[in-house]
Amino acid sequence: MLEHLKEEVFQANLDLPKHGLVKYTWGNASGIDRERGLFVIKPSGVDYDKLKPNDMVVVDLDGNVVEGELNPSSDTKTHAVLYKHYQEIGGIVHTHSTWATIWAQAGLDVPAMGTTHADTFYGAVPCARFLTQEEIDRGYEAETGYVIIETFKERDLNILEVPGVLLQGHAPFTWGKDAKSAVMNSVVLDEVAKMNLFARELNHFAPELPQPILDKHYLRKHGKDAYYGQ
Amino acid sequence: MLEHLKEEVFQANLDLPKHGLVKYTWGNASGIDRERGLFVIKPSGVDYDKLKPNDMVVVDLDGNVVEGELNPSSDTKTHAVLYKHYQEIGGIVHTHSTWATIWAQAGLDVPAMGTTHADTFYGAVPCARFLTQEEIDRGYEAETGYVIIETFKERDLNILEVPGVLLQGHAPFTWGKDAKSAVMNSVVLDEVAKMNLFARELNHFAPELPQPILDKHYLRKHGKDAYYGQ
Amino acid sequence: MLEHLKEEVFQANLDLPKHGLVKYTWGNASGIDRERGLFVIKPSGVDYDKLKPNDMVVVDLDGNVVEGELNPSSDTKTHAVLYKHYQEIGGIVHTHSTWATIWAQAGLDVPAMGTTHADTFYGAVPCARFLTQEEIDRGYEAETGYVIIETFKERDLNILEVPGVLLQGHAPFTWGKDAKSAVMNSVVLDEVAKMNLFARELNHFAPELPQPILDKHYLRKHGKDAYYGQ
Amino acid sequence: MLEHLKEEVFQANLDLPKHGLVKYTWGNASGIDRERGLFVIKPSGVDYDKLKPNDMVVVDLDGNVVEGELNPSSDTKTHAVLYKHYQEIGGIVHTHSTWATIWAQAGLDVPAMGTTHADTFYGAVPCARFLTQEEIDRGYEAETGYVIIETFKERDLNILEVPGVLLQGHAPFTWGKDAKSAVMNSVVLDEVAKMNLFARELNHFAPELPQPILDKHYLRKHGKDAYYGQ
Repeated sequence: MLEHLKEEVFQANLDLPKHGLVKYTWGNASGIDRERGLFVIKPSGVDYDKLKPNDMVVVDLDGNVVEGELNPSSDTKTHAVLYKHYQEIGGIVHTHSTWATIWAQAGLDVPAMGTTHADTFYGAVPCARFLTQEEIDRGYEAETGYVIIETFKERDLNILEVPGVLLQGHAPFTWGKDAKSAVMNSVVLDEVAKMNLFARELNHFAPELPQPILDKHYLRKHGKDAYYGQ
Repeated sequence: MLEHLKEEVFQANLDLPKHGLVKYTWGNASGIDRERGLFVIKPSGVDYDKLKPNDMVVVDLDGNVVEGELNPSSDTKTHAVLYKHYQEIGGIVHTHSTWATIWAQAGLDVPAMGTTHADTFYGAVPCARFLTQEEIDRGYEAETGYVIIETFKERDLNILEVPGVLLQGHAPFTWGKDAKSAVMNSVVLDEVAKMNLFARELNHFAPELPQPILDKHYLRKHGKDAYYGQ
Repeated sequence: MLEHLKEEVFQANLDLPKHGLVKYTWGNASGIDRERGLFVIKPSGVDYDKLKPNDMVVVDLDGNVVEGELNPSSDTKTHAVLYKHYQEIGGIVHTHSTWATIWAQAGLDVPAMGTTHADTFYGAVPCARFLTQEEIDRGYEAETGYVIIETFKERDLNILEVPGVLLQGHAPFTWGKDAKSAVMNSVVLDEVAKMNLFARELNHFAPELPQPILDKHYLRKHGKDAYYGQ
Repeated sequence: MLEHLKEEVFQANLDLPKHGLVKYTWGNASGIDRERGLFVIKPSGVDYDKLKPNDMVVVDLDGNVVEGELNPSSDTKTHAVLYKHYQEIGGIVHTHSTWATIWAQAGLDVPAMGTTHADTFYGAVPCARFLTQEEIDRGYEAETGYVIIETFKERDLNILEVPGVLLQGHAPFTWGKDAKSAVMNSVVLDEVAKMNLFARELNHFAPELPQPILDKHYLRKHGKDAYYGQ
């Protein structure tokens, strides 16, 4: 079932090491079929060079396996919570990519300091708080999803305008209209995390991008008047 | 038309990811035929691994498409303004290469701190100011070109002696006698941006290159008494 | 003899340059056959691209060559001391990987600042002290092993829960249940060394990972209730 | 003539981009035949991917071309001065490798902070002073060689024990018993330059390597009692 989606999600997973975002098996990409309410995700801990499209696991929105002989990613419940809460999301990616993870460990939002950021994220990428002992005991992976939802709600952020988050002490999650665009958003997030770190090191007073330029770059690529691409 | 130039510009565009200057489609190279007053540029948002020489778009000096089925790069008007104003330029490159972009985000000129710099740039590479709301409204891409012209005029810089610029909060543009040399100037700019950042981090008092060494290195490679190469 | 183990150790050695952990011949991996009390290690100073499985040298727990025509790694006695003292160890790796070596040169423990660390190391990776002149004279390589043992004893660390160490002014050693897992632990150690350095640079007050999250990540991958993987 | 040496020097030149030490044509390796008093060097400004063994240029110790249709490297006279003054040197390499060049731009000696350094360099790698206007006018490339000689004399350094130098504002030169070992010394210098920069950034008080460990590591690889390798 969902052969086409499995192929898409398989390719998105292969793109993670190709873009230098993951070492070994430290990442996962998923994609959803909204009509059926099922999503497809990488199996847990399987080497990328042994992975096949048919190893992808089909899961429902409560995180139960519907089809597949392998265990799904240990982060499956985080994906499930996000898909269930945000109807707009078509694909999700989790990695421990170096530079985004550095910001997560620093516990800081990634500010919008350049147009590379503005082309993809309409404002700062937030850093969600540490999970508490109680949340961990209740169910670490699902609660990770709830903390993301809490963060976007508290800050009144649009999930598609800011398609990524850092979890303090952990690493980033990104999403998009499908698995492929979620991967691209992970690439962008890691790159701007690197750029911003060194820009502030070079000039501690390096400013955030002025609002008019942020608007211009985001809106020439996104929204009804976008004119980037074909 | 312009088949030879299309091939040249196509190769220059492929060199951008090859040299690690661009991810995905975040860059563009162009080259001009001065006799015809037409330039050739990469289409907007097309994957490098799907790009063909014939996808290159032919554009006039006002940025109007003369030939080609695809939309030209969204930065086409910046290229057009520069080609129109500076007769000496034969090729232009725009990337968001990591280290040059870091300096752009820091809002700082890249000083001439070593001979790697002096072999290509005869002095600091300037950082142009942010565009204003008014300029953005008037036409972001053309105004980006005008701000570059303003910067070179105010500082009395020779466009071929300093074949590159940073745009604050955005990224670099470089140019040269053709698209290939514009690519090389982007490689050099990114490398010296990296070197200078860490040289100043290692020694906050790291000096700029003394004028006699700057002169020697620039002039042994450029100008009538150059003796580098074949 | 030990053909299967030689093949395993050979592959583990090849994985070191593949993962960017070693340049030239600056690293070595070994694996042990506990029943026979013999271990297999890379020969000293042989280029990786000329290395063959049969070049692996078989050594006893006092570091004497049992089989092999080449000299074993100059660090063989360090491996022997560790295998002899810690029955739990099945494989050992030594590299001068960039970021772990930077922490060794800084003389600092690598604190557990993120889940990337907690997935593999159950707490900080210790930095062992410099060897003294007397220890060096007595036998540099064996004494290196003794200083590692001293460090783990003084700090009351479990050798498998913290499968790695830095030697001040030198570089890391890691270990695991076999040579392959020792390589992976080297990859993780280098990556978290890099992340932690820049996380603290970005935010000098970046905290260590709270204990509940450290517990959760370490224990979901290790121990009797682990649920990561297949 | 000197076909075997040309092949060796050609391979050494190819190793420079392979090890990430040079971009484009920014580097050169040479090797000498001491019996004939002639050395072989890369031609100036020729792309590495078009270079052939027979393009190597044969030069005498005054820097005059003896055989070859191409211009030799613009740095040929620096090589000639070093070969003439130091009979012990068999190969020389010049690059603008990133991290060594950063130290050159910072104007600082690279201290011996770890065993990676001590395995190759018996103490700090010195940074030679800027050339003066007078020296540049007299002959930039030959004077570069004289400043290196001055530096080693003033500091009473043995040319083979410390097989490399930085030139302030410029970049490194390394040497060795042949072109191949000169390349390896460039790789080591760049790597320790990187490590030392970040070790001091991580811990501003990171110490230099204690003398006994420096002695041990240098002498187990070099000198009459060396026991590293086969």
